[in-house]
Amino acid sequence: MLTDLPLPELATYRSSQRTPDDFADFWADTLAEAAGHDLDVRLREVPTGLTTLVTYDVTFRGFAGQDVRAWLRLPAGATTALPTVVEYVGYGGGRGHALANLLWASAGFAHLQMDTRGQGSSWSVGETPDPAVATPQVPGVLTRGIGDPADYYYRRFLTDAVRAVDAARSLPQVDPARVAVLGSSQGGGAALAVAGLRTDLAAVVSFVPFLCDFPRATRITNAYPYREVADYLAVHRESIERVHRTLAYFDGVNFARRATAPALFSVALMDATCPPSTVYGAYHAYAGPRELLVWEYNGHEGGGILDEARALDFLRARLAG
Amino acid sequence: MLTDLPLPELATYRSSQRTPDDFADFWADTLAEAAGHDLDVRLREVPTGLTTLVTYDVTFRGFAGQDVRAWLRLPAGATTALPTVVEYVGYGGGRGHALANLLWASAGFAHLQMDTRGQGSSWSVGETPDPAVATPQVPGVLTRGIGDPADYYYRRFLTDAVRAVDAARSLPQVDPARVAVLGSSQGGGAALAVAGLRTDLAAVVSFVPFLCDFPRATRITNAYPYREVADYLAVHRESIERVHRTLAYFDGVNFARRATAPALFSVALMDATCPPSTVYGAYHAYAGPRELLVWEYNGHEGGGILDEARALDFLRARLAG
Amino acid sequence: MLTDLPLPELATYRSSQRTPDDFADFWADTLAEAAGHDLDVRLREVPTGLTTLVTYDVTFRGFAGQDVRAWLRLPAGATTALPTVVEYVGYGGGRGHALANLLWASAGFAHLQMDTRGQGSSWSVGETPDPAVATPQVPGVLTRGIGDPADYYYRRFLTDAVRAVDAARSLPQVDPARVAVLGSSQGGGAALAVAGLRTDLAAVVSFVPFLCDFPRATRITNAYPYREVADYLAVHRESIERVHRTLAYFDGVNFARRATAPALFSVALMDATCPPSTVYGAYHAYAGPRELLVWEYNGHEGGGILDEARALDFLRARLAG
Amino acid sequence: MLTDLPLPELATYRSSQRTPDDFADFWADTLAEAAGHDLDVRLREVPTGLTTLVTYDVTFRGFAGQDVRAWLRLPAGATTALPTVVEYVGYGGGRGHALANLLWASAGFAHLQMDTRGQGSSWSVGETPDPAVATPQVPGVLTRGIGDPADYYYRRFLTDAVRAVDAARSLPQVDPARVAVLGSSQGGGAALAVAGLRTDLAAVVSFVPFLCDFPRATRITNAYPYREVADYLAVHRESIERVHRTLAYFDGVNFARRATAPALFSVALMDATCPPSTVYGAYHAYAGPRELLVWEYNGHEGGGILDEARALDFLRARLAG
Amino acid sequence: MLTDLPLPELATYRSSQRTPDDFADFWADTLAEAAGHDLDVRLREVPTGLTTLVTYDVTFRGFAGQDVRAWLRLPAGATTALPTVVEYVGYGGGRGHALANLLWASAGFAHLQMDTRGQGSSWSVGETPDPAVATPQVPGVLTRGIGDPADYYYRRFLTDAVRAVDAARSLPQVDPARVAVLGSSQGGGAALAVAGLRTDLAAVVSFVPFLCDFPRATRITNAYPYREVADYLAVHRESIERVHRTLAYFDGVNFARRATAPALFSVALMDATCPPSTVYGAYHAYAGPRELLVWEYNGHEGGGILDEARALDFLRARLAG
Amino acid sequence: MLTDLPLPELATYRSSQRTPDDFADFWADTLAEAAGHDLDVRLREVPTGLTTLVTYDVTFRGFAGQDVRAWLRLPAGATTALPTVVEYVGYGGGRGHALANLLWASAGFAHLQMDTRGQGSSWSVGETPDPAVATPQVPGVLTRGIGDPADYYYRRFLTDAVRAVDAARSLPQVDPARVAVLGSSQGGGAALAVAGLRTDLAAVVSFVPFLCDFPRATRITNAYPYREVADYLAVHRESIERVHRTLAYFDGVNFARRATAPALFSVALMDATCPPSTVYGAYHAYAGPRELLVWEYNGHEGGGILDEARALDFLRARLAG
Repeated sequence: MLTDLPLPELATYRSSQRTPDDFADFWADTLAEAAGHDLDVRLREVPTGLTTLVTYDVTFRGFAGQDVRAWLRLPAGATTALPTVVEYVGYGGGRGHALANLLWASAGFAHLQMDTRGQGSSWSVGETPDPAVATPQVPGVLTRGIGDPADYYYRRFLTDAVRAVDAARSLPQVDPARVAVLGSSQGGGAALAVAGLRTDLAAVVSFVPFLCDFPRATRITNAYPYREVADYLAVHRESIERVHRTLAYFDGVNFARRATAPALFSVALMDATCPPSTVYGAYHAYAGPRELLVWEYNGHEGGGILDEARALDFLRARLAG
Repeated sequence: MLTDLPLPELATYRSSQRTPDDFADFWADTLAEAAGHDLDVRLREVPTGLTTLVTYDVTFRGFAGQDVRAWLRLPAGATTALPTVVEYVGYGGGRGHALANLLWASAGFAHLQMDTRGQGSSWSVGETPDPAVATPQVPGVLTRGIGDPADYYYRRFLTDAVRAVDAARSLPQVDPARVAVLGSSQGGGAALAVAGLRTDLAAVVSFVPFLCDFPRATRITNAYPYREVADYLAVHRESIERVHRTLAYFDGVNFARRATAPALFSVALMDATCPPSTVYGAYHAYAGPRELLVWEYNGHEGGGILDEARALDFLRARLAG
Repeated sequence: MLTDLPLPELATYRSSQRTPDDFADFWADTLAEAAGHDLDVRLREVPTGLTTLVTYDVTFRGFAGQDVRAWLRLPAGATTALPTVVEYVGYGGGRGHALANLLWASAGFAHLQMDTRGQGSSWSVGETPDPAVATPQVPGVLTRGIGDPADYYYRRFLTDAVRAVDAARSLPQVDPARVAVLGSSQGGGAALAVAGLRTDLAAVVSFVPFLCDFPRATRITNAYPYREVADYLAVHRESIERVHRTLAYFDGVNFARRATAPALFSVALMDATCPPSTVYGAYHAYAGPRELLVWEYNGHEGGGILDEARALDFLRARLAG
Repeated sequence: MLTDLPLPELATYRSSQRTPDDFADFWADTLAEAAGHDLDVRLREVPTGLTTLVTYDVTFRGFAGQDVRAWLRLPAGATTALPTVVEYVGYGGGRGHALANLLWASAGFAHLQMDTRGQGSSWSVGETPDPAVATPQVPGVLTRGIGDPADYYYRRFLTDAVRAVDAARSLPQVDPARVAVLGSSQGGGAALAVAGLRTDLAAVVSFVPFLCDFPRATRITNAYPYREVADYLAVHRESIERVHRTLAYFDGVNFARRATAPALFSVALMDATCPPSTVYGAYHAYAGPRELLVWEYNGHEGGGILDEARALDFLRARLAG
Repeated sequence: MLTDLPLPELATYRSSQRTPDDFADFWADTLAEAAGHDLDVRLREVPTGLTTLVTYDVTFRGFAGQDVRAWLRLPAGATTALPTVVEYVGYGGGRGHALANLLWASAGFAHLQMDTRGQGSSWSVGETPDPAVATPQVPGVLTRGIGDPADYYYRRFLTDAVRAVDAARSLPQVDPARVAVLGSSQGGGAALAVAGLRTDLAAVVSFVPFLCDFPRATRITNAYPYREVADYLAVHRESIERVHRTLAYFDGVNFARRATAPALFSVALMDATCPPSTVYGAYHAYAGPRELLVWEYNGHEGGGILDEARALDFLRARLAG
Repeated sequence: MLTDLPLPELATYRSSQRTPDDFADFWADTLAEAAGHDLDVRLREVPTGLTTLVTYDVTFRGFAGQDVRAWLRLPAGATTALPTVVEYVGYGGGRGHALANLLWASAGFAHLQMDTRGQGSSWSVGETPDPAVATPQVPGVLTRGIGDPADYYYRRFLTDAVRAVDAARSLPQVDPARVAVLGSSQGGGAALAVAGLRTDLAAVVSFVPFLCDFPRATRITNAYPYREVADYLAVHRESIERVHRTLAYFDGVNFARRATAPALFSVALMDATCPPSTVYGAYHAYAGPRELLVWEYNGHEGGGILDEARALDFLRARLAG
């Protein structure tokens, strides 16, 4: 059943999220600090048994110069710099197994799939830790360090995500003018954030994005992970203003307002995890060219393989050599 | 938590399922009848946007000469007859989208993924109908025609599965001496059945198989789809003996007793859908060479991508040219 | 709790369902085709141990001339043609046991209770199969053949329902001028459909009807069986328009618009299975004389035995000899 | 799934319940006290619109001379004293509507259906209050007055049940030599209790009885109403011994040990409400002739209409004139 | 997630509950009748092992002169008459253990915690029975005697609550000019009722009150205990008007309209048990000075210990000597 | 219902957990490293409004010299060094609000309630962070750093717990010869661990302890937090042996084998969170004098306030001056 507003009301919905005055400075300082560490991209080919693809275990330095892992998958025998997809993963997962997720490389792209710090245990394996001060929090990462933007988990994760694009662009197999970011759910939120923080992307794909429109998202769904914020505030009853102040620095709505690259979104009208109004909140705020796939009868799986098929067409058009 | 016996008791568990006296005749007659219809394999290449693989939409004649669909995926540019994996799909799904499930072809196999008649709507798309007399039944297919072995849904589906191997072997891209069958859950049950009905298979892979050890399975789990039988018998209270008589012709335990090809099984000790004792029931009955992957802390997802990684090694060894 | 609009909004709610241009032709052709088969009504008295009633096992030819079963219950010793109730059964059930459902005959009516093809296994026994091409579908019958009105399950079932009235009227125990149709949930949807397809009914009773106002019903409830359509469209993502095109031919709203017989409806404001707005959608569209029983604090059980008591009064008034 | 021991273990299970030394005295005193009040049976014919049956609203004096309601249903036109079924109702229900429950009278029995004091609100209507001191208790009646056998709710209810037989036998329409007691769940428990407290019954029918084998029942199921005792003891932690002392006076196992009339039981192996071992506990203790219907795949609905069909045969044989 | 209206709509919400014309007379008569019984307050010191507090087991005569228990906790060594908190307990609980609930006495108040008749078994122990005629009802007390205001459970309980203030004021340890009533949920509803029935209170504290705005409460939540009314009306379908007539005499909205003492309320916007609009319904009707604590992300736990901390400040200010 | 073995089997159950050869060295090294940091205990009196107690906000240096918070509550006006209770908190909580948890100080003990690093957000507030490398983990802390004993979360938490005793003993208000440790669930696990790591405790109280008998606990319950380990291993399928190697260093069974102080345990037979066999596993291994409170009908709440009442007696006897 519909989990949120009906379609006509979604079409006119706008998020109430405010952009903090120092939003740009906060992120400029954060990325500058990270840029003070060398990327130090390391590649190690891994034997997978696949004959059509080549796979590398990648390590680069992300937030605070901490090592972040990734997979790089390439069509075997590629000889030119390729159009490239940098992918971010959904909540709880990591980069997973080298044998999984073969679509983008099989379609002729270089495919850099970034691991997620401190997650990678709930549905797919990860290997990247999150070295940090874990403040009192509810289980998960959505409230880790939520008392201050400087301490918040997503400051570290999104900095990793921006740096992954730098890491990709530094590789000889990658054509730096043809790099897109892509992800679903938390990965879609990360793609939006990177879209708001970089001006050199060829395209952005954000399926059923998470991390959008927190003022509404934390109030209209019982589903995790947004529920983590509500759980936290149910105990930290006097921190509501403070928590929402932090979240504003990480809200996809605020990133969308600064984005310029052409973007493909998807939204599902029966999605309880990322309620559709929160996706529309980001979509309507998106400052670059934008398209939206609407799945009327889907939950958080969104368009699934059809989302990917449409993105394949979208990326092929945007990243044509 | 464990959903069934602890490991030491599983090691000694044997199924109480009996083999009907006319089991071999029943299946010989069924397959002979099907063989009276020409296979009529039709291939149509489909554009997918993938550069490393070639994909065909396949149609062949299965049970009663009715059309059954499949995907054939091949590594692009293959010039010799390939070792081949014939795959069957889990309950409720169909062959899905052409862009999904790229592993086996990316690893150098010809990969024929058979559609499932009348399913293909619960989690992946299918296009093959089930033309038949649908008797009074509970939702699903597990009790469709369950009053008589001749009318039972799985007589049709498993005949399709056997015919899919014939269809594969008829193709020039396939090396008929190197064909394996593979599947998970319902697909693993189908692989077991085909293993019991053919003598020309190079290998069998059956992950967390369904359709095994019905006398126990229908009593020890509340999870669907086995629960469909319990639901049916809760209403058709006087049909218990009759229903179990039918199921005996389709039980993986009985197919396993006749199998000869080397087989790789997997089982998960926290699996409520296919309780581990029922898998052990089939495994211990398996008459050919056998190996078992035991996942102690998994549910019905079993070993997931690790099951596939191990199967990749297993198949490469068994299907080496 | 209320599962839908509050009462004042229900009072003004109107369904958005459209009537297909060829709706009348579709049904005229369908019924004409069925009429090409002889009814071939067969009665066999069954010993029940009841002393006040006589019971017959009835078989007649329904859709495509296929056999459909029914019970005929009569007060013992009746010597004149009786006012008659033709009853249809709720989703998942069949005509049940001969000893059940004694009310209508005990009240002096001839009572023909039609079996439901292919159901009769979830809560009451049935014996009528559904010989057809079962397309890929989700478990249940609500999406069986849903890709085309000609193939849809409910084309067959509703044709059976119309033919049941013919079968009743052909019996010497039945006064053909005093036949009513009655049912609850799916049975209430069937009664509405028959009301829209016949002009010779003395009365119609439709309790908490199912199969009404699909455009809204498939979006506002998570409860089965309406949910079957949403499940189907979550996988068959590109078939939304096509599916709703089919459903329009079977929507109680469209049948109601053509009905003429006096009707008694019931609706329950806490009903999640058949949300009250969808019932009001049909009720407000009903073109004949109409009455509505509103149960403010009930779920899908509606008025239960009180619905029946009121219907007894209603039918006695409408079917007085 | 099985909710309790498998069938072979049920066959040898015996309850550990002890019979209190003063069990017989307790009940003799209780019934004697009730017998000090005149039965004062009052009948009022109620118009139902049924033509085959006659229905009376009955009031008699039960425990402490308090009024208890019942329905008396008779085949219309009966002229002789009839074999009679006294029925008790399941937990939470009352005697319900006059139009319901027509089976026994339609089969030629006088049918006295007793209302249940203080219940009659959860699934069927009742009109008999429970005037008493309601001690601190969990919601429901299973712990009302549980601190002392003299105060316990079921002392009052079971005394009503015994008196209902007296009331039936006092009627001219009833043949006092051919009275059976019957019920399902709580009603089955009541039938067992009456069987243990009277010697003048022609037959006893106890479907899936409740109120049996409390020492085991309160520990092996999470389902209500047995769970009420566990909920109570979770708060009244120091009352375990005291509560079980009370329950022993009301346990079907103890009544069964004193019964003499021929009895038909039913049990369902997937019943979580009245786990099968607790039914076997009573059945194996039953001191009179006994038969047991075993439903292997049913929950608390037991054999449903088939239980009734078998009971019809059983009663016809035992109550033949 | 929000369980009711968003905050701006709550701010303007007003309850539709009507005050019965004889509301004042009903309660005046009820309290006068109770006043005809001597209070007969009895204190017995209980050894608790606590060194900072003294505890008494209190008994007084409440409704109909029936004994009601309470705890009286005092700071050890107090020599003057103290400001006093009379507390009522939440649904299902009793006065609990003497060692629990030490806050108010530790803060220097005399603390009289009243037991709840007939409850005291679901989460904390009670010892006060409810001697009455228990009419047919759903499990719990919310529908006990609901057919008539004179018979309703809450007439007895609220009379006890009023009498508890009299009992407190009669004690030498209590300063009768400085008595406040306090409670949460059902206890908050009781505090509101007492506030509407007495003019001698120094303050009122009502956390997330239950028993408010029944016309809305019984329709907008599925949570117990309000659901008990809906369950009752689902069976007693013809008693809707009668039941709401009774409830109007016990609705916190109607008590609030007559209150004069300064009051502190709390409300939680994610509370499904006592939906926030129903609390606002009472709060907006409150005729005395009022304050409201709003917890945006809490369920029925409300502000928890912070509610108590704020109440401590509130009471210290209002009950200053 | 019983969640584990029945009582007679619990009485003979022994854990299969092994003690690592270097268990003593691991902990000696860990505590020595912590001892290298000064305790640096800081007290700040906090105004609470309570008149009978004095409360201090305490900070001391725990693992790695990191600051850990606590509350110290004392009876007002105490002039001698007091018997002392050091309390640890259950999973997800922190030290909570200063106004809560008044029992132990009200009974004349000094009461030091330690905050829990990185938790304090799920049900009670905490303020102590967990500065560490958060490895990929499932939500919660039970798998944080689980790949290596040196990195495991509980190495840090339990070191804090040991240091809290040092902090308490360093205070002038505390009699160092009369210090007990106490806790419930995770707090009870911590008390057990401290009991195994110190020889200067006067008593140990461990209610329904968590962190015991991991080999069994991780397999026999679906309840969190033990389930976190199963969730982790469902994804990190190849880490089973490694994870159990780590857990052995933190298992209450292994701490119990080294304990010497007299201990009071409690266990609840319907506890799914800490299944009773796992508590018996620790209890039977406990090397010091021991007593066990068995709650037959309770879940994880155990004896609740009765556990505390019994502990009050136990501590008063063991800590008598």
